[in-house]
This record gives sequence, structure tokens and C-alpha cells, in this order.
Amino acid sequence: MDKHAGAVSELVDQLGRLPGVGRKSAERLAFHLLRVPEAEAIALADAIRRIRSDIRYCQACFNLCEQELCAICRSDGRDTTRLCVVEQPRDLMSLEQSQAFNGLYHVLLGRIAPLDGIGPDQLTIDALVDRVRDGNFTEIIMATNPNVEGDGTSLYISNVLAEFPVQITRLARGITAGSVLEYANREMIADALVGRQKL
Amino acid sequence: MDKHAGAVSELVDQLGRLPGVGRKSAERLAFHLLRVPEAEAIALADAIRRIRSDIRYCQACFNLCEQELCAICRSDGRDTTRLCVVEQPRDLMSLEQSQAFNGLYHVLLGRIAPLDGIGPDQLTIDALVDRVRDGNFTEIIMATNPNVEGDGTSLYISNVLAEFPVQITRLARGITAGSVLEYANREMIADALVGRQKL
Repeated sequence: MDKHAGAVSELVDQLGRLPGVGRKSAERLAFHLLRVPEAEAIALADAIRRIRSDIRYCQACFNLCEQELCAICRSDGRDTTRLCVVEQPRDLMSLEQSQAFNGLYHVLLGRIAPLDGIGPDQLTIDALVDRVRDGNFTEIIMATNPNVEGDGTSLYISNVLAEFPVQITRLARGITAGSVLEYANREMIADALVGRQKL
Repeated sequence: MDKHAGAVSELVDQLGRLPGVGRKSAERLAFHLLRVPEAEAIALADAIRRIRSDIRYCQACFNLCEQELCAICRSDGRDTTRLCVVEQPRDLMSLEQSQAFNGLYHVLLGRIAPLDGIGPDQLTIDALVDRVRDGNFTEIIMATNPNVEGDGTSLYISNVLAEFPVQITRLARGITAGSVLEYANREMIADALVGRQKL
């Protein structure tokens, strides 16, 4: 018995499809969009349309961009001897926000996940091999996620790249800045011990 | 240092203005909208536009609707002797979902809140008085929120309507179904005692 106007129902349904947005949140968001200045609601609608019409993958690194090459690949100021391999554009974004890396990236657009039917062919590994062959990289930093699938993907790629004269590294693991040892789990502690550094 | 494509930034900004959506959630939602089938993203954009172009207030009850009168006011099957007064269209929706009321509604579009500068004139109280004068209501059920402002609004309206031969009631208060007395707060217990019913 859905008595509210069709356009409201429709928006509640659409919002409810977003990850982490339940029915109650969708209703709250819909009423919010009814209440804000019209321009603000239209700006959101247009931003959604524009992300689908204007965004494509960078032809070099598969980051998201609006031109042939993304802002990072176009930039003159990056260290072109280091290449950081990530699973998704959002991982790249996290790394950029850290401001700790000034090299180039390569986005795999996924990870090898046999259980989900995702093999190496569905990722951008061929393009990565071409880049490593043709570029002048001295170091490839694997920055896949620290879980079974991410580690498996890194291992696979490091084998594929073994024929090239580049150093392959991965992100350090250990305890996280600001955490307390008391609450660190076993894997974190083990990683921290294995990777211990000289003071 | 925002290196991701303009359209992505723009959408993250717009999504971040929604209530309860922080920067991280906005990024997750933006990447979700990049990943889903294009039709799904466009459907959301269109639903947002449509809610602003097609929705207006019912001329009788101020519920949201797409025509002059809302589906409830247009319906033949409602009890036209009972009128339930609510603050917002979403309150009306909650009451409808309970399926426990078959009368008509009146949406105030707010509550009297002197601290926010909202007086009776900014609500739809004049229209309510006209409806009570011209209609054949026997009971007006005040269903404002059970807080200081909601109670104040109900009290104000019950004074305004005192000149008409209608019974004015309010929603029952007490302990909530499914709750445990041990965790009920003092106000809930007091309400439950004051409103105790014969078994």
C-alpha cells in the first residue's frame, strides 16, 4: 500500500539500490532532495549523468579520466621510473591523498579471484607488461589489497614481470600508526615482526 | 591535491552534501555509480530531476502529490469524519504504512518552533481551520512528534480548534511494543502509567 506520489516512490526505490542505503535512509534522502533548493538537487542529478557520459579510462594507466590520458599520466612532474600497481581507481586515490608517492600508476581494474570467475585475462595485466617492457621503470610497487586475493594477484604479476630488469616491491605491512598493540590482531603483529626495521 | 577526474570530484562533492553521507561514503557511492549499468545510474539521475519537476503539495491536505489532490484525498474509500494532523509528509507515510488509520490527513509542513523562528503562520494551520469548519469531521487526531515542539504545536492547534464541535485526540503514549521495561526511560514509564488501560 504505497500511497506516496509516484515520483517519490520511484526516487526512494532508486536510492535504495545504492550500497549501504536502506529503505529508511532512502526515504530520508528523498525528502531531503525535495526540501533543498532545486538547483542543488539538479546539480546532483547532473553530476550523476556527467560521470557516466564524461568519464573513461586513461589509455596508459586505466585510471578514470575525462581525456585520453589522466592528469597523472599527463603531468611533467612525476617520477617515471617508479610504477605503482593498484586494483581500483579508488586505491590510486587513497595513495595520492597520502602524498607519499610521486611516480606513475597502473590500475588493474580488479584482482584475480577464481571463485568469482575473474582470471588474469580480465585485468589490465597485458597492458602493464607492455608498459614495463617499453618504459624505463626501475621499480614496480605492488599495492594490491592485503588479503588473499590481492596477495595472489601481486604474486601472479611479479612472476609475469620476472623477465624484466625491474625491482618488484610491495607495500610494507605491520602495525598501523595510531593503533594500540593490545588490540592488534595476530596477522598484524606477525607482519610487523617479519618486517621489523632498524631504529 | 585532487587528482581524480573533474566529473568524479564533482559527484563526490554533490553526494557529500546529502545528510549522513561523509566524504568516504560519497566516494564509495560515486564509484558504485561508475560501475553499475549505465541505465541504472541514469534512472537515479532522472528520478532526482522528476521529484523536483513533478511533485507539489496536495491542495487539500498538503501531502506530496503529482496532481491537484493526493491519492488519499482523491480516494472514495477513506473515512471522511476523521482527520489526522501530522508535521511532515514522511510522518503521514509512517502512519499509512501501519495500515491502522483510514481517515484523511492534514500535513502542517513543520512544527511551531520559536527558537528556529517558525511561528503558526508558517504552517498550514489556516487551511486546517478552513477544512474543519467546512468538513464533516467528528474527530481530529493530533499526530505531531512526541517532543516539546510537537506537543506545543498540538496544544496550539487544539486551542484554535476549540470553537468547533469536534473531538480532539492525540496518539497514545507508553511503552513500545517489543521493548523491555528494564531499559525504558522515565518519560516512557510515566506516559505508560498515566495512560494505563483496562485489561
